[in-house]
Amino acid sequence: MHKFTRILSCYTLLLLAMTRWAQASEVDLDIVTKIRDEGFNRSQVMETLSHLSDTIGPRLTGSPQMLEANEWTKEKLTEWGLKNAHLEAFEFGRGWSANSIQVFMTSPRKVQLTALPLTWLPGTDGLLEAGILHAPMKTVKDFEKYKGKLRGKIVLVSKIPEQKEPNKKPFVRHDGESLKKKGQYDVPLKDKGKKFEKSFLKTMAFLNELNDFLTEEGAVAQVRRARRSGMIINSDDYLYRSDHPATLPGVALSAEDYDKAVRLLNKTSEVTLSLNVDVDFHEEDNKAYSTLADISGKGRDPEIVMAGAHMDSWAGGDGTVDNATGVAVVMEAVRILKAIGIKPKRTIRVGLWGGEEQGLYGSQQYVHDHLATRPDGQDERLKYMAPMAAQTFGGYPIKSQKDHERFSVYFNLDHGSGKIRGIYAEENVAAAKVFEDWFQPFHDLGATEVTLNKTYSTDHVVFDQVGLPGFTFIHEPLDYFNRLHHTQLDVFNHAYEKDLKQASVILASFLYNAAMREDRMPRKSLPTGPNDFSKDYDKTNKEDDK
Amino acid sequence: MHKFTRILSCYTLLLLAMTRWAQASEVDLDIVTKIRDEGFNRSQVMETLSHLSDTIGPRLTGSPQMLEANEWTKEKLTEWGLKNAHLEAFEFGRGWSANSIQVFMTSPRKVQLTALPLTWLPGTDGLLEAGILHAPMKTVKDFEKYKGKLRGKIVLVSKIPEQKEPNKKPFVRHDGESLKKKGQYDVPLKDKGKKFEKSFLKTMAFLNELNDFLTEEGAVAQVRRARRSGMIINSDDYLYRSDHPATLPGVALSAEDYDKAVRLLNKTSEVTLSLNVDVDFHEEDNKAYSTLADISGKGRDPEIVMAGAHMDSWAGGDGTVDNATGVAVVMEAVRILKAIGIKPKRTIRVGLWGGEEQGLYGSQQYVHDHLATRPDGQDERLKYMAPMAAQTFGGYPIKSQKDHERFSVYFNLDHGSGKIRGIYAEENVAAAKVFEDWFQPFHDLGATEVTLNKTYSTDHVVFDQVGLPGFTFIHEPLDYFNRLHHTQLDVFNHAYEKDLKQASVILASFLYNAAMREDRMPRKSLPTGPNDFSKDYDKTNKEDDK
Repeated sequence: MHKFTRILSCYTLLLLAMTRWAQASEVDLDIVTKIRDEGFNRSQVMETLSHLSDTIGPRLTGSPQMLEANEWTKEKLTEWGLKNAHLEAFEFGRGWSANSIQVFMTSPRKVQLTALPLTWLPGTDGLLEAGILHAPMKTVKDFEKYKGKLRGKIVLVSKIPEQKEPNKKPFVRHDGESLKKKGQYDVPLKDKGKKFEKSFLKTMAFLNELNDFLTEEGAVAQVRRARRSGMIINSDDYLYRSDHPATLPGVALSAEDYDKAVRLLNKTSEVTLSLNVDVDFHEEDNKAYSTLADISGKGRDPEIVMAGAHMDSWAGGDGTVDNATGVAVVMEAVRILKAIGIKPKRTIRVGLWGGEEQGLYGSQQYVHDHLATRPDGQDERLKYMAPMAAQTFGGYPIKSQKDHERFSVYFNLDHGSGKIRGIYAEENVAAAKVFEDWFQPFHDLGATEVTLNKTYSTDHVVFDQVGLPGFTFIHEPLDYFNRLHHTQLDVFNHAYEKDLKQASVILASFLYNAAMREDRMPRKSLPTGPNDFSKDYDKTNKEDDK
Repeated sequence: MHKFTRILSCYTLLLLAMTRWAQASEVDLDIVTKIRDEGFNRSQVMETLSHLSDTIGPRLTGSPQMLEANEWTKEKLTEWGLKNAHLEAFEFGRGWSANSIQVFMTSPRKVQLTALPLTWLPGTDGLLEAGILHAPMKTVKDFEKYKGKLRGKIVLVSKIPEQKEPNKKPFVRHDGESLKKKGQYDVPLKDKGKKFEKSFLKTMAFLNELNDFLTEEGAVAQVRRARRSGMIINSDDYLYRSDHPATLPGVALSAEDYDKAVRLLNKTSEVTLSLNVDVDFHEEDNKAYSTLADISGKGRDPEIVMAGAHMDSWAGGDGTVDNATGVAVVMEAVRILKAIGIKPKRTIRVGLWGGEEQGLYGSQQYVHDHLATRPDGQDERLKYMAPMAAQTFGGYPIKSQKDHERFSVYFNLDHGSGKIRGIYAEENVAAAKVFEDWFQPFHDLGATEVTLNKTYSTDHVVFDQVGLPGFTFIHEPLDYFNRLHHTQLDVFNHAYEKDLKQASVILASFLYNAAMREDRMPRKSLPTGPNDFSKDYDKTNKEDDK
């Protein structure tokens, strides 16, 4: 080879490499430096989190505390320079908050038990003491067995499962292998979304039917067994509809105490409990709210990029990792972007949703009002849920609303306090490629994995359902699901500062990239009907209804 | 080789092998078969356990429930055919039992907190509401800082440790490797027994000094932080002396709630708690009791083999794995032996001790009355403990009592619900050899490991201290220390039937072997003074006292 040719050849390669680099990344690394500096060295994420979870506390949808959080976040975002901070309402039901609970076994011996009031169930109006009956019921078919036997009884409605050794580690961080496994696409055999819908509707209906059956039979209260051991209690119930309110008090009892009562009942045939549950209903307003605010984009009708997190929580703990952490990270991300003085091309909007825990209502209302509508779902069990559920469980065709076209992307935060390790690209291959690029400057923070898998059960779903790019991240699992989720342990002590700073920085960068990139985020095609799995779903459903 | 010689040679080898087998094992395998059959197929261990922990419940030393357990076990053992079932008393202090507790944060917002009454501390005599002060104190030197600042305050006396990720598995079973590791002898650098004594005496003194300081300064209550996360609370305090009773109410608060109160105090400078703690003192009898019973041996003054377990517990849970399981296993072992109709050469005695948790008092009283005495210990901090502590922390020379010579061996059960995986031979090499033989028929049950290591902190110590063979077993750890120990989670749900049946069968076999073998269990030499480590101990002690 001639010498000159070799020099030319090297030069060409260099040019090619530079072009490839330029093509390969759309990330502005100087902005990343600024975001990291602000997010790591002048973070306010823990202050925000502490205000939401320590100062305000649990934020059950429709409760005064949730409204307080709506107002406080509106003010805080305005203070940080965001525009148009406001609340958007949705029809919901009764507000509820718990004041106090005391539960004792009073016979055969006096023992104070560990219990939480079941959400939206009435209090006991003072001390309620009665004998217990163990009547495990999972479907309406189980009612027959207990007809005529419940009058005057406190009814223990849960089955006691077989004893299991608690072998699972409560707290986990990903290693290379477990993270890689997350990334492998799981070819679907069933439509998991439909499966979840089905089981959720079933639960909603059964909780209402159980309340009605127990009331008709003259039971005086229901007691449910906690799912976890270690006296960790989930106390979520759903009877918030004003037109179908719960009529019977009820408590969630620790697994240990529940089983003790049943063992003693089997030995002695007479066990009495006393319940003293004091709760408040807030019925002056049947609506609940989400908080929204913008960093305005350029021009008259700029496109929109969005980050959201549900702000409502259950009432047993302070709703720290489910989901004050998500809210704090979303707020911190836009605070960082304001602090470093960006002027985005697209509008960056935050949505702090209400009603997620009961069916994604706040985000669904937002989608309905601004992005797309669909024919209302017709399942009669929807009557037990907020009106907006008819959209979440709706039909086809999907009809675009005014902002559908100019909506680029939605990022959701709702997986606890763990740092971001990757993202679920929701089967959007072009978006996955973009995210791989965006994660490049955060590999040193452990954020690397882009998977095409779908996820469910939180607010990005309502965007994805109407053909808009909606995503949620892969986080460190920590003890979110294994210990904290929907329990009284969901409090500030279980949040991790380093993780939350990392997530805030990455989200800020993702929002900036999305706001500044040349094109809107790539979209999947608009869904035109339920997918093929719906046949399986319908069959399974009919079998279950026999 | 000639053919005849070869035959002779084979015969000789066979004889030799048989002799070796005969020499190698003193275990009667037919009896083992019977023990396994009775213990696995007609077990009553779970019924015994349920009575102690569900029906009777917590058995704090000196409480009416402990006395109920003393009486019930006495009757049950008599019903099973044991002789001479009776109670033996020791001087203790006040009885105490808890009726109810309600703790709220009342300002800046109302939150119900998770708390337990601190054992032996008085109740609040109705509702007590006051502002809090965070005054972490670990030694008397810390008092200076808070002088004059505590009047009218509820004082939070614990330091908040650095946040740690809860990486430990709560529930563990040994694998081959971890069990082998237990077996490796740990050449001592310090006298662990003395170290434990020292820290225990220090704790006793400080708890008393703290109560006195808080009272003098006009504080209205103390609040202690739970050691574990997950709202798991240990509530053990020790101020049971009638002549130095606790004067201030106190509660143990979940770590999560404690830290929340302190965070809010740092933010708002005014946090109030309300405490409503109702407890009873039982002062008609300053004594507490152990239950003893025998399967009588042959002849006039047969030698004695013994199994024991402390029956007293803390008051937060039902004292199931600490130590109703030990009691149930000891009782089941002798029930099995009676059921299969053994006629032992030596007397088999059971001791169900009181006062273990406060300083091994029941077993120490037994040793003192029957086996050996020593000059009383002179540490002035002994005034905070029951009188018998002067023996546990006593001097030399040891003086034999009437049964010292005819006492063979003591086996202790106090490590939770896990099955037996081996035994601590307490540096007694000849005994270790015997145990290896005794475990042979139980290798299929996982009981294999004999270690020469010593263990502390439970009742075999008082036998070992006076030169008598006293042993405790290696058990599956399960969640005994990681989750249950001294907490409200110590209830029946965390006991495992298969494990307890296994332990009962092995203990029955050990008792039978000990009762029938030709010789008494090999002894170590009678201790004639503290060991060499005492110099280190004295030095360390003086340094700490500076």
